[in-house]
Amino acid sequence: MQTVATQGKLTATLIDEFRRIVGEQFVLLDKDSLIRFGHDETEHLSFPPEVVLRPRTAEEVSAVMKICNEHLIPVTPRGAGTGLSGGALPHLGGVLISTDRMNSILSIDERNLQVITEPGVITEVLQNAVKEKGLFYPPDPSSRGSCFIGGNIAENSGGPKAVKYGVVKDYVLNLEIVLPNGEIIWTGANVLKNSTGYNLTQLVVGSEGTLGIVTKIVLKLIPLPKYDLLMLVPFNSLEKAGEAVSAIFRAGFVPSALELVEVDALQIVSRFVDSSAVPITNDVAAHLIIEVDGNHLDTLMMEMEAISSLLTQFEAGEVYFADDAQQKAELWKLRRRVAEAVKVDGYTVEEDTVVPRAELPALVRGVKELGRQYDFKAVCYGHAGDGNLHIRIKKEGIANSNDDPGLIAGIKALFRLVHQLGGTISGEHGIGLLQKSYIDIVFDEQQLELMRGIKKTFDPNNILNAGKIFDL
Amino acid sequence: MQTVATQGKLTATLIDEFRRIVGEQFVLLDKDSLIRFGHDETEHLSFPPEVVLRPRTAEEVSAVMKICNEHLIPVTPRGAGTGLSGGALPHLGGVLISTDRMNSILSIDERNLQVITEPGVITEVLQNAVKEKGLFYPPDPSSRGSCFIGGNIAENSGGPKAVKYGVVKDYVLNLEIVLPNGEIIWTGANVLKNSTGYNLTQLVVGSEGTLGIVTKIVLKLIPLPKYDLLMLVPFNSLEKAGEAVSAIFRAGFVPSALELVEVDALQIVSRFVDSSAVPITNDVAAHLIIEVDGNHLDTLMMEMEAISSLLTQFEAGEVYFADDAQQKAELWKLRRRVAEAVKVDGYTVEEDTVVPRAELPALVRGVKELGRQYDFKAVCYGHAGDGNLHIRIKKEGIANSNDDPGLIAGIKALFRLVHQLGGTISGEHGIGLLQKSYIDIVFDEQQLELMRGIKKTFDPNNILNAGKIFDL
Repeated sequence: MQTVATQGKLTATLIDEFRRIVGEQFVLLDKDSLIRFGHDETEHLSFPPEVVLRPRTAEEVSAVMKICNEHLIPVTPRGAGTGLSGGALPHLGGVLISTDRMNSILSIDERNLQVITEPGVITEVLQNAVKEKGLFYPPDPSSRGSCFIGGNIAENSGGPKAVKYGVVKDYVLNLEIVLPNGEIIWTGANVLKNSTGYNLTQLVVGSEGTLGIVTKIVLKLIPLPKYDLLMLVPFNSLEKAGEAVSAIFRAGFVPSALELVEVDALQIVSRFVDSSAVPITNDVAAHLIIEVDGNHLDTLMMEMEAISSLLTQFEAGEVYFADDAQQKAELWKLRRRVAEAVKVDGYTVEEDTVVPRAELPALVRGVKELGRQYDFKAVCYGHAGDGNLHIRIKKEGIANSNDDPGLIAGIKALFRLVHQLGGTISGEHGIGLLQKSYIDIVFDEQQLELMRGIKKTFDPNNILNAGKIFDL
Repeated sequence: MQTVATQGKLTATLIDEFRRIVGEQFVLLDKDSLIRFGHDETEHLSFPPEVVLRPRTAEEVSAVMKICNEHLIPVTPRGAGTGLSGGALPHLGGVLISTDRMNSILSIDERNLQVITEPGVITEVLQNAVKEKGLFYPPDPSSRGSCFIGGNIAENSGGPKAVKYGVVKDYVLNLEIVLPNGEIIWTGANVLKNSTGYNLTQLVVGSEGTLGIVTKIVLKLIPLPKYDLLMLVPFNSLEKAGEAVSAIFRAGFVPSALELVEVDALQIVSRFVDSSAVPITNDVAAHLIIEVDGNHLDTLMMEMEAISSLLTQFEAGEVYFADDAQQKAELWKLRRRVAEAVKVDGYTVEEDTVVPRAELPALVRGVKELGRQYDFKAVCYGHAGDGNLHIRIKKEGIANSNDDPGLIAGIKALFRLVHQLGGTISGEHGIGLLQKSYIDIVFDEQQLELMRGIKKTFDPNNILNAGKIFDL
């Protein structure tokens, strides 16, 4: 097994060709740039590329790819660098292609409820642009204020709304991609239903930039719901909170968000953003954040009441309703900034586990037990409605999870538990570089061989984001 | 380009091995069976296999596949034989694997809102089984009373509910498949979100039985909505009806069904099922069937009124509300039996076009124009809310579309129009055998090469449903 074939050498001549293609000022070779583009939000990893290119068009990307393919130069595509699995890290050096200049929303088609966008548009910018037309693009990772829509496609991102509205893959109708050989193709058609050939679109979504570089994106939009209501519900045990999650769906409700935050995480983030919005008493172990949305306020009020009444069966504490936009924003801010806050607090290692939602209590129990066994602290939070639990781990003196054999053993045990519970090791962050060594916990050799075969079909020279997800 | 590699010969020894694997009585060689399993609902095509096998388990399928792979025997998997693109036709002879005995619903998981089923379960049987638990599996092709869920996966089927709830691909969480080499794998995990490796699940959905034989299926379920309301709205032009469809969504409504039936089709089906439920006056060109569903009856009534008020802008005629379950059933019966009725009436050729929904009027206009130009009659009906228009074609003396050069030219022109409108040639029926010769209208050589590469990765000997979708 090898990560790349004979790796080519980046020469001054090739750099000059790149300058001709993308323009002199968009070829970065200075140390600061190389360091800046050498890390993302994944732990404390750093892999500077040899050169950073900032192309503006698919044609420029294509011309660059042709050269790199011919000369066997490793290429790493990068969005905003907010990734949590190291997918955009140029660990083999070579060329880094930043999509930050491909940042136009090309058209918002109000007749068909579709948007065509370039990959370097910030997710929240896109959401706001369509919102102005009364339209809704639901997937919104916590990093939506800075992440790019292209990166969201690479990782098949989710976010809090996924529980009702689905993840990125559920909105991608068609993609223009540049293949490793430089050819530019569309993966499908701009339609809501498609049974025409293999679903290349869905294959590319979540492929972490290993099959092609996405240069245009056609997304489905839906009408923007007129109202939403939000409440925060405290529980005196994490497990009861987990049981309540499953019960809400079994009772026929489909909230537009159903988030879990363990009290330790809430305390840390409350300190971090200097907020006293949520009073934390001693008997609280975790909170659920529950949102419903729709076009009829009366109906939503009835739903909220019915849900909170159901929750009394799970020893829920006093429910806090967010009364206005400001209170809602405050609650969401707390939720969205948890990851950042706990990271600063030393919880540098994040796992992105996902299980069938009723298995959450078993997972949470397991995490705590493994922490004791393998000597780490863990806080849990995440998209409980989807069974997607983020587990942030702190182990004194350890910055990167792969630096410590004890921690590696603990993570392996955690992932084996997740697999036993019918789940898998990433719900929305991807495998990238960081989780690659754990992938054989969930896939056997036959499954990996199929994936390798697909990779070779798209990228026979293994130049595009090579060595991510799995080794060839 | 060749369809199969050196094709192996089915010997008496191999037949004996099959008997040992699946049981003597489940190996069919009699002429009646071969003829019965040699056709589906696609026009009047007939391709009898050399032998029909009716295995009960994935392990039996695996053992059969190993033999066929070793001896290069073509294998065609088959569900209920209700397909409309010839995907289940054994056009190369060889072995037909019928999934009809793999017909158990293995578990309905009410805690996680999932069902695990074998592929030979009839779609409606599955729907009713989960409905008894208050759960909902929305995708329901017109043939739901006879088609198998496994076939629905092969074709990525849709049906009327897709407009609000999505198609089959949106419900498939995980698949057990037997690969052409006989290995049994799972494609993913039983979770709602998954960013772990390439999306093999979505690659297999809609791959028309060319990548593996699906033997177990994990489907997502949702809570069953408590109420639905149905109305029928006449329009004096097909184009106005098409414009109304787009307007409904732009106004913020998401109906649970939004079907279009051209008046010719309605007349034919009304005669066919002997129904006078819908009075047809001379000034009517088409009807929209509009359904809304949800948990609050008052809200639904308000939505229906708002929609019907909106439709007056499109010269809609008098709206007919279905008052009770019987009237609703009558309307749905008319809609569901259109295809069968018009086929009996001589409209034997069906196209399954799909365009962005606002392009429906342009498509309908184009169909009529092409009919005049290429001398065929056409009736239109289908899932207008998704832009998925079924076009049934009648040309005197022609039973199969590929028998007549004039008709082939007309279909080519139709598909080129669909492509120009941003659409594609199949929304839910698949390409199979019938539409294969048109696939280069929507895919260029580079796209097809990727698909061929994927096929070769899964099926290097090209034995499984070879020559479907594209030639290798």
